[in-house]
This record gives sequence, structure tokens and C-alpha cells, in this order.
Amino acid sequence: MIILYELGAASGARYSSFSWRTRMALKHKGLAFETHPVRISDKAAISFSGQGKVPIIRDGETVVSDSWKIAEYLETTYPTAPSLFGGPAGLALSRFVNAVADRQLMAALAPVCALSITQLLDSGDAAHIRAGFEKGFGKPLEELHAGREGSTKAFRRALDPLRASLRAQPFVCGATPGYADYIMMSPLQWARIVYPEPVLEADDAVGAWFERMLDLHQGFARAEPARAARD
Amino acid sequence: MIILYELGAASGARYSSFSWRTRMALKHKGLAFETHPVRISDKAAISFSGQGKVPIIRDGETVVSDSWKIAEYLETTYPTAPSLFGGPAGLALSRFVNAVADRQLMAALAPVCALSITQLLDSGDAAHIRAGFEKGFGKPLEELHAGREGSTKAFRRALDPLRASLRAQPFVCGATPGYADYIMMSPLQWARIVYPEPVLEADDAVGAWFERMLDLHQGFARAEPARAARD
Repeated sequence: MIILYELGAASGARYSSFSWRTRMALKHKGLAFETHPVRISDKAAISFSGQGKVPIIRDGETVVSDSWKIAEYLETTYPTAPSLFGGPAGLALSRFVNAVADRQLMAALAPVCALSITQLLDSGDAAHIRAGFEKGFGKPLEELHAGREGSTKAFRRALDPLRASLRAQPFVCGATPGYADYIMMSPLQWARIVYPEPVLEADDAVGAWFERMLDLHQGFARAEPARAARD
Repeated sequence: MIILYELGAASGARYSSFSWRTRMALKHKGLAFETHPVRISDKAAISFSGQGKVPIIRDGETVVSDSWKIAEYLETTYPTAPSLFGGPAGLALSRFVNAVADRQLMAALAPVCALSITQLLDSGDAAHIRAGFEKGFGKPLEELHAGREGSTKAFRRALDPLRASLRAQPFVCGATPGYADYIMMSPLQWARIVYPEPVLEADDAVGAWFERMLDLHQGFARAEPARAARD
């Protein structure tokens, strides 16, 4: 049984975008796993990994951290299970997609969601998250939150290439979903879990695709409560 | 012998970003081809294609327009030649890369290059290009040109995901180049041909990769004169 260590909120929410990439990858591979929530401030809980960040998986004697490295590990270690990448070119191109998600999508979505995340966390983790975002953006979270309408529009624009590719195919990876789909859904799942309002317009093709992603693997991602349902 | 119809400038420059995707794809497949320059305003020259845009290829009785459709056609029609996509997932992910190039990279680079392009063209084509860009950006090309320093910085930022993926692998497609590399090099080749100054900083990893792209296929893309060399 693989063990996944991931951020867990006081509310019970499993809110890490990066962890959702790993969760969906494990489901895609058909691998059984259990998850252990970790508080941001609890470095001792993951000291076994030799570094300070989640997600981490422990698979028998093997410990792997970093969602991208975990995906590569799963593809290599379980080659007969359904492929995450569809070959070497697919893997290399998924790495580009991963960089788009981290550097453009998460960056565009963070000002929308930052204040809302802190409301899900205990005071220690909330202070940690607040300090990180306020340093990164150079302004108080309340000020970021006040500008959320414009930030939401900028995020929707950042989805333009995804939107265009979904006009021609049902999934980012083509006829069936793969790891690049899990990468791209992860910021939207993050927003779904931490932010009480929809970040997409109702008729957005990206939204229709995201619903398909929530349906996969017996509705696995949909089973995680949306923030709108928690409040 | 495949015939490629593509934009050609009065100066002799073959300056279409989209055509460079097709040129490199033909080279990758090892297919012989000759090119026919077409002026923007000369719709009659390409009326055989049943539409008004280049690039177009004529392969025997078959006519295909649109650089993406041409790439798909070449992959399907010449399956034993080196693959452009590396399989169905690679094709689907390349479509996303194509959308990134069109909607983000070309959009970011156009304000930098627009005025410079018109200087390569005869007065009819220059007027056509000017009208298109001025409508799109809502300001005179001279004003866009005056802001080129800021636009260039924005373009470099738009390359962040490419830069990140090239830190881990020599080509966008992994160990060897594929169509996604040709897509991503095409805005840089466009800038090289039409714009007299470097758009990348000297130590940019994207620049080192672009030099490798210029070297491919016996220096095919490098053989097209840079604007800096023409002036």
C-alpha cells in the first residue's frame, strides 16, 4: 500500500494542487494508497524524506518527493499499468505543461485564492501561508482579495491555450486523459476546494472538461468537498 | 516534389512564423520541397487552395493549408519517416503547445516586431500588415514600437515555461527535437528575420536551445538571413 503525505487543513480539506496531481496519477495507475495529512508547520512529520515539502510518497522502502518526480517514478515503476505520459515525447511535453501550470496558472490564481485558503487553516498554518503570499506579492492578502475580480479575469485569459486545445480534443492528452490533464486540472481543483465562488464562466469549455475530470475514477476528485459546499 | 506556398517579402525574406513550422516539419520528415513566395495581397496566387491563407502545401494532387493541419497530414502520409509527434499523446500535447505559441508568444512578440516587418515589405503588403496590427492593438505601429523595451521583457516572461522545461531536457520534445520544438522556435525565427535587435538576453537558456534549432538539418533555419545581417 503506497502512503501519500500531503497538506491537510484543520477543516479536513486536502487542498494542495500538487498533491491532486499525485492523487490522480495514483488512481490512473490503479494503485491502492492511503493519505496522511501534514500541517505546513509540522516539518517533523516528513523529516524521513530528507526534505521539507509535500507531496511525498512512500512505496515500500522507496520515498519520493515532488509531484513531477513522483509521476516519473510511477511511470517507470509500474510500466504495465495505464501510461501517464504515452511515451518519451509525451513525457517531455508534459514537463512543459507542468511548467505552464506552475508558472502561469498557479501564479495567476494565487491572488484570487490566497485569503480564502487561510480561512481553512489553523492559525499557525494560516500565518505561514499569509507570510509566503504577502512576501511574493508584496501586499496584504486583503488587498489581493479586493482585486479578485480582475485577477479572476487574468486567470481565465491564462487558460486560453488550454481552451483552444480542448476545442479539438476531449482531453489535453487527446482521446483519453493522462498526466497533463491531471496537471491542468490541479489549479481548478485547488480553487474548487479553497475558494467559495466559481472561477470559470458558466459556458467555458474548460469548465466542461473539468467536470469530465471530476467524473474520472468513479468521481474521485469530485468526492473532495467544494468550498462552496463546506461553507 | 512538394510545393510550399508561403509569405515572401519584397526583400526576399521568408518571414512567416507559421511557414517556418512547416519548413522544419518537411525537413524533419526528409521530404524534398520547393517554396513559392506569395505576397499578402496576391489572393489570386493561392485561389487553387479554396481559401486565402498561407502556408499551403501541394503534394501531388493533395492541397493542405494551415500549418497545424499540414503537420498532421505529413505525419499521417509519411508514417515511416521520423515522427513529428511521437504518438497520439505527443500529438495532442503538441496541439496545446501550438496554442501557447499562437495565443501567448506571437501575441507578446507582435508589438515588438510589427513596425519592423513593414520595412521588409512592398507598400501594398506593408499597408495590409499595418492595418491588421493597428486594428488588433488599437494604436499606431510607431507607438507600439516606442514601447518595444517593455514588450520585449513581457515576451521573455512568456517564455518562462519553455525555459523551465529546457532546464531538464535539451529539446521541448525530450532528447531529440520534434514538431513542438519547431512550433516554439517559430516566433524566435520570425523575430530573427524581421527585427534588427536580439529579443533574448545573452545568457538565456532559450537562446542556447534556439541556436541548436538553427543548427538542425544542416543549418537550414540559420541559412535564412537574419534582419541584423540584411541591414
